[in-house]
Amino acid sequence: MEDTYGNLISSVAIANDKRIVLLVMDGVGDCDNEGRGTALQQANTPNLDALAARSALGESLPIATGVTPGSGPGHLGLFGYDPLVYQVGRGVLSAMGIEFPLEKRDVAARVNFCTIDADGNVTDRRAGRIGNDENIRLLAKIRQKITTPEGVQEVLLETVAEHRALLVLRGEGLDDDIGDTDPQAVGVPPLSATRPPHDGSRAAGVAENVIAQVREILADEPQANMILTRGFAKFPDWPTFAERYKLKPAAVAGYPMYRGVARLVGMEVAAEPTTAADICAETARLLNDADYTFIFAHFKYTDKTGEDGDLAGKIARIEEMDAALPVLLAAGPEVLIITGDHSTPPSLKAHSWHPVPVLMSAPHLRGGDGEAFNEIACRAGQIGTITAKELLPLAMAHAGKLEKFGA
Amino acid sequence: MEDTYGNLISSVAIANDKRIVLLVMDGVGDCDNEGRGTALQQANTPNLDALAARSALGESLPIATGVTPGSGPGHLGLFGYDPLVYQVGRGVLSAMGIEFPLEKRDVAARVNFCTIDADGNVTDRRAGRIGNDENIRLLAKIRQKITTPEGVQEVLLETVAEHRALLVLRGEGLDDDIGDTDPQAVGVPPLSATRPPHDGSRAAGVAENVIAQVREILADEPQANMILTRGFAKFPDWPTFAERYKLKPAAVAGYPMYRGVARLVGMEVAAEPTTAADICAETARLLNDADYTFIFAHFKYTDKTGEDGDLAGKIARIEEMDAALPVLLAAGPEVLIITGDHSTPPSLKAHSWHPVPVLMSAPHLRGGDGEAFNEIACRAGQIGTITAKELLPLAMAHAGKLEKFGA
Repeated sequence: MEDTYGNLISSVAIANDKRIVLLVMDGVGDCDNEGRGTALQQANTPNLDALAARSALGESLPIATGVTPGSGPGHLGLFGYDPLVYQVGRGVLSAMGIEFPLEKRDVAARVNFCTIDADGNVTDRRAGRIGNDENIRLLAKIRQKITTPEGVQEVLLETVAEHRALLVLRGEGLDDDIGDTDPQAVGVPPLSATRPPHDGSRAAGVAENVIAQVREILADEPQANMILTRGFAKFPDWPTFAERYKLKPAAVAGYPMYRGVARLVGMEVAAEPTTAADICAETARLLNDADYTFIFAHFKYTDKTGEDGDLAGKIARIEEMDAALPVLLAAGPEVLIITGDHSTPPSLKAHSWHPVPVLMSAPHLRGGDGEAFNEIACRAGQIGTITAKELLPLAMAHAGKLEKFGA
Repeated sequence: MEDTYGNLISSVAIANDKRIVLLVMDGVGDCDNEGRGTALQQANTPNLDALAARSALGESLPIATGVTPGSGPGHLGLFGYDPLVYQVGRGVLSAMGIEFPLEKRDVAARVNFCTIDADGNVTDRRAGRIGNDENIRLLAKIRQKITTPEGVQEVLLETVAEHRALLVLRGEGLDDDIGDTDPQAVGVPPLSATRPPHDGSRAAGVAENVIAQVREILADEPQANMILTRGFAKFPDWPTFAERYKLKPAAVAGYPMYRGVARLVGMEVAAEPTTAADICAETARLLNDADYTFIFAHFKYTDKTGEDGDLAGKIARIEEMDAALPVLLAAGPEVLIITGDHSTPPSLKAHSWHPVPVLMSAPHLRGGDGEAFNEIACRAGQIGTITAKELLPLAMAHAGKLEKFGA
């Protein structure tokens, strides 16, 4: 799949010292809540509303109509990387999630501890959802007994949470042509990593060796006596923000997953705050004291409260960000985008497919938009409904960072 | 052309027991009528308006800006099959139109009776628009005298209407690499079915043989003394609704063409009503008594009145559907889409390119839409203006039938 739009933008990108801030209120979009409106409609947000009245409003479609994005694709879209072109494997995302320092030569996979019966069939794909302590104990036991297969330098295993872990094969010349061993069903044995079309891959042979050893090592365990692996993937070799946009980017993000996705596109992690006040303060500090031309600032709790089904909490977190915002505004970024990577309606307790409200404070705007930052005002705004990947280029245009196309 | 969006949706589709109903009011969209508004604006539709007030509104673009769809592409779009990717030959559409039981091994073509002069040049491409009886008489004469060419099992000819007929070559191993013989002009002879690049095709040779025989058989006819053929095509081998969406689909359609298009994507024809009351009753019966998870219900008369230039009739047909609707609503489909496959403004007496109003009754909506089902309210609605092929995926999202993309 060709990245036609991305290549176009890249071909007209020029550097200047204007600063773009992308403030992601994760999962900020909502549905109506029994006639009382969305979380943004219900929240008391004088600063966001005042900013909306002098900004461009619109809606962002993270991937495509009806499609609910995971956090990885959701953020890649906001970074202007078409999530259908720039697909990142689950193994790499697992590494991102625990901020594992993945190297270019590594192959990473998502691991589940599971239970198999005497016949070798999977009886529980999550080994009864064992706790973190048990996970840590089992990995220590494996590390102690495992022999590094020939042709690799290290086999690394890291706890993620509960029954989930990360497997990294480290060695030169490994590819990610390795079959998932998770059969996605119970009552059947795990699949082979070397089954066709992966039977010619050296890396698949290494994975199969490791998994066979783990099976021996865990044979005496009553519950988590086997592992299932999936999403073997290498750190992607994508154009960086500097290469693609001529931007000098920084990430301000308190959670590992978002720092990880930022690193995938070559951002430097400049600060790790989690509260709205700290996020706005750190971003302002970087605007005042550093020479970044792009800052990605990530606020997690609007998503977390949505996932928890906690509408009151989501409203409170939106109000928390609203109260913190003046500090960021005072630092005067030339362009400020405030949006989410997707919607997380508390009524769904999950990410959703709904378009996401967007506010863009920038020079060279048209008028006539609404005077509030919420889903209903935003869908009538001057930006219209565009795909997430178009937002950053639009911000670059407003910042004078895109040259004319053609003479 | 790659079906990127369709493949994406297919990759995240999951089955559940929620029911989606697609009620097509064929050609429902309209232009303004001398300042009095569209047919939908002028119609008295208390049930549609009440439903609109608690639904999502929007507009559907059948193919692309400015492009007027035929019935085939119009419906394929509504079924989520990109009409530019899933193109069906005119021969197959002709077969659909008379509900001819086309087999996978068949090659079908649209036939016109025509008139040629002593030099073999076409003088009338429609043979003076002969009537159905003459058409039937001529086909009987041909059937009686024709010899089945070697390599095919049967040559089938069926009356469509007036000067139009269907030709089907039935036999194993035939392809549709056959040239149109209709020169699309008078004063020139018919084209050869075997002209380059079709000269290597066995099927083209068979078609040429059949056409030469027909010319001999009709040589003594004063008016319809030859046939022109075009759009040779085979029954397409497309993914079915079950394969593509994990839906169990049924069609409720009183007209052959629409049952035919439904069968192209693997729908079962469950009922054949034509009036609004019967369509709603049959759809409700299927919702109550059967286990379909998708029902396509087709109402023809909003298009027919438009084609006739009968604005009053179109308004009456809309009101007829409005009055019938409560029976369908009472059966409680989880998602209900009401739209058209295109617009058919009575002032144009034809299909048009105008976007089509859409109403989607579903859970997990945002609010703030208008309180009437018409073109003006719909274009300000939360769905926005999307292509027809995005509607079914959006309905599937609301019905919980699409998994998250990426982690």
